[in-house]
Amino acid sequence: MRAGPIGIFDSGIGGLTVVRAIHALLPDESTVYLGDTARVPYGPKSPATVERYSLEILEWLVAQGVKAVVVACNTATAHALASLRAASPVPVIGVVEPGARAAVAATRGGVVAVIGTSGTIASGAYRRALLARRADLRIVEQACPLFVPLVEEGWFDHPAARLVAEEYLAPIRSDDVDAMVLGCTHYPLLKPLLAEVLGPGVSLIDSAEETAHDLAEVLANTGLAAAPGATPVHRWAATDDVARFGRLGAVFTGRSLDEVELVALATS
Amino acid sequence: MRAGPIGIFDSGIGGLTVVRAIHALLPDESTVYLGDTARVPYGPKSPATVERYSLEILEWLVAQGVKAVVVACNTATAHALASLRAASPVPVIGVVEPGARAAVAATRGGVVAVIGTSGTIASGAYRRALLARRADLRIVEQACPLFVPLVEEGWFDHPAARLVAEEYLAPIRSDDVDAMVLGCTHYPLLKPLLAEVLGPGVSLIDSAEETAHDLAEVLANTGLAAAPGATPVHRWAATDDVARFGRLGAVFTGRSLDEVELVALATS
Repeated sequence: MRAGPIGIFDSGIGGLTVVRAIHALLPDESTVYLGDTARVPYGPKSPATVERYSLEILEWLVAQGVKAVVVACNTATAHALASLRAASPVPVIGVVEPGARAAVAATRGGVVAVIGTSGTIASGAYRRALLARRADLRIVEQACPLFVPLVEEGWFDHPAARLVAEEYLAPIRSDDVDAMVLGCTHYPLLKPLLAEVLGPGVSLIDSAEETAHDLAEVLANTGLAAAPGATPVHRWAATDDVARFGRLGAVFTGRSLDEVELVALATS
Repeated sequence: MRAGPIGIFDSGIGGLTVVRAIHALLPDESTVYLGDTARVPYGPKSPATVERYSLEILEWLVAQGVKAVVVACNTATAHALASLRAASPVPVIGVVEPGARAAVAATRGGVVAVIGTSGTIASGAYRRALLARRADLRIVEQACPLFVPLVEEGWFDHPAARLVAEEYLAPIRSDDVDAMVLGCTHYPLLKPLLAEVLGPGVSLIDSAEETAHDLAEVLANTGLAAAPGATPVHRWAATDDVARFGRLGAVFTGRSLDEVELVALATS
């Protein structure tokens, strides 16, 4: 058992859906979250840039005494997970592997869809992770760039959100897809709408929940879990505009964020 | 008369609508455009950060031998125009003043709307510029965060874009507004849709066109205009992902961008 917090980071606020899943599954664990809001979004940036930013954040989290790190950002997982693991003194968990594993477990017909930002889809990270587990899968990929701003507007069930979802998901509905990975940390907030548009024949895989399960397993296996009944402490930090972070963060976590710290990284 | 190019910059690709307007109005002028795609968007960033980024870009543009600089970014104009003018050896033109002046000229009833990104609206830059010209104006402001991603998807007349526009513009339609400033460089591409939603009673002020007019005036007044019939050269540069810049840039400028240079700034 160990008392340090779990470190969690994302390019912005989307990773807070992962924090929410971690708090729900592991209520005794303390957490410290860093949103790199000064440099959001990571999607359009080059792999080398995303890797550099991620390593800077790792350094900051390790300095806060974290006992494990969750990369709650699909782009950072795609471009930096290997480097982070090589550089980190504590275990590092990404969001791609857990989602891919759950999708492979869920599909019956062997046709899986992946939706995400343009950057995540272009990275091919889910495609590779899925095929590594089951080489005969057929994979339908769809970038959904409008979903993040719709979520950030809070338009989870606005008629416009429905039209956008119908347009993006049309290729998925007309195919034999029976499992779909929500490959962006913003998307869990659209889950009810996506479920309605796709109907009951498609299992929706929530990477945030799957990642929390992976974290629980790693903590249990490495003896790092908090003592049962410990009083958890949650810290929130961002690299810019902490007011907006606090406001949107409340939407994402379903709780008010008491105080958001402003953090300066090397080059932000 | 002087042969150097006009330097134009934006946090990303939106400023290309300003370039298009400049090319249309001033076909003899050479241009060099820098999109700070590594650090886009500027909207959610703090004023001090936006000022620092803008000054770095000014330095790069001046090193390219520009004879004038156009800040084709509402956020950078709001937070950095004064510092840029203080630091620049050449004239600097922003996008806010030209749009505000045209709106004041266009309104009959004295009720003007301004639409823009959350950052631009929160900055109050248009409000200040409008009231400085006419203190008794009534101003209706509306942030439209979904418009930029809709434009970047190319959904200029998609039914979802219409629903989004109807939602955002409802307060403007129900008011006595008779002039509306498109306070974001992406928005000129939505102009036909916005005109349809608002009807003929509202003049739409295109900041890109107004800024090109201001530039023409400055060049004429300072003897900096290119020789008539000069053969213009156009350069395109971005701080990250030049491929995406080239692809989207063609949508914005209506021409293919031959070559996009990758530029490294101090802290990008």
